[in-house]
Amino acid sequence: MVNLYEDERLDYLLAENLRIIQSPSVFAFSLDAVLLARFTYLPIQKGNIIDLCSGNGVIPLLLSPRTKAKIIGVEIQERLYDMAIRSISYNKLDDRIEMIHGDIKDMPKQLGHDQYDVVTCNPPYFLSPSPDVINSNEHLAIARHEILCTLEDAVKTSSQLLRQGGKAAFVHRPERLMDILTLMREYRLEPKRLRFVFPKAGKEANTILVEGIKDGNAGLKVLPPLFVYNEENEYTDEVRDILYGSE
Amino acid sequence: MVNLYEDERLDYLLAENLRIIQSPSVFAFSLDAVLLARFTYLPIQKGNIIDLCSGNGVIPLLLSPRTKAKIIGVEIQERLYDMAIRSISYNKLDDRIEMIHGDIKDMPKQLGHDQYDVVTCNPPYFLSPSPDVINSNEHLAIARHEILCTLEDAVKTSSQLLRQGGKAAFVHRPERLMDILTLMREYRLEPKRLRFVFPKAGKEANTILVEGIKDGNAGLKVLPPLFVYNEENEYTDEVRDILYGSE
Repeated sequence: MVNLYEDERLDYLLAENLRIIQSPSVFAFSLDAVLLARFTYLPIQKGNIIDLCSGNGVIPLLLSPRTKAKIIGVEIQERLYDMAIRSISYNKLDDRIEMIHGDIKDMPKQLGHDQYDVVTCNPPYFLSPSPDVINSNEHLAIARHEILCTLEDAVKTSSQLLRQGGKAAFVHRPERLMDILTLMREYRLEPKRLRFVFPKAGKEANTILVEGIKDGNAGLKVLPPLFVYNEENEYTDEVRDILYGSE
Repeated sequence: MVNLYEDERLDYLLAENLRIIQSPSVFAFSLDAVLLARFTYLPIQKGNIIDLCSGNGVIPLLLSPRTKAKIIGVEIQERLYDMAIRSISYNKLDDRIEMIHGDIKDMPKQLGHDQYDVVTCNPPYFLSPSPDVINSNEHLAIARHEILCTLEDAVKTSSQLLRQGGKAAFVHRPERLMDILTLMREYRLEPKRLRFVFPKAGKEANTILVEGIKDGNAGLKVLPPLFVYNEENEYTDEVRDILYGSE
């Protein structure tokens, strides 16, 4: 049993046999979140994992089958936090995933510095526009624009939460590659793994996945490119596997 | 007629119908130089082009059929400079390509600041090792290690030589991506185009091509990946075209 409000839907997270509440007018997860959930390193048996800017909880939900560790999700918008809570309950994952309704910038003080093994974050991508051009839908605007959370907030908070040697994984746009790499180094998250996502062969990258290690040594690996669609405009085998599982 | 010394060979630059003097014990150009020569923007009719760390002149030679502009090459090793001079003469390009025997760091003073439209540079890739592990062949060691020219020297000199809006293209290793992007921004060469070269599908990148614009606006494009070998371990169509021409 689940309560669905307004235009909310109970969608499948196919590869993981989970369900998730979404709403086109409030928040729907993107492929980027799914790719980040697959990209990140995870401890299998134990550890502390935290996902920042969780939205409707898609990343904590996707991580849960791959680890026995406790997962915390943080979301500032009450409406989205509430969707996440209901999805977690529906999937009977209340003992595995904890959602916090709050500002990520307050989390190091609230949860403690240097306590986490893994941080994931799919932050808002776009610089905060002037008020008149801002997305008139407040929920979508906050999720997409740097209104309540800048890239620097996301990187700084991640670093504060992570223990030395802990790993932070982010997804962002290639236009911000310079910024994210520079900020990561500035906040002691040395970039170690970088993967570019291309909509299809012959096109420019439209997404980056990057992982840093707190106080790690320099030395970046650029992983094989990830293509989303093949020449027939169908998902590639790799993306189909990530979305729907390999069977 | 050309004079060849010791183990020098007169090799073909196939795609361009040119010949080039090489020597396995002194200097032989790499695929990276060929990829950089193809990657860089070039003015067709006129302009000032300069190639730093030119080695045996491979990049000026490869650029010459694609532009009517004057090309300068700078090489610090007299032995390699001499190879370049002889190759240029053999190809009857003395009026198009000028080689300078000197240190790139002296060029802004010698040639003038803010005069060039395009700078290309395939710098030494490796940090300068301790004297006992250095390559015992001095020519190869200087070409490969940051002994006489660091990455910072290459980026700084390129920026000094370029006019505002001029373009610098570099080839380097992914491990140094952070360093090169940071240095480029520090020296006002805003990174605009980035391309990763993968030995084959499924492997990590082993080469990066990057172009910056002096005092350009932020906004980096990540171009489609370049694969060198296909599944049969033959050159891909794209690399074969670059090396041998499309016919």
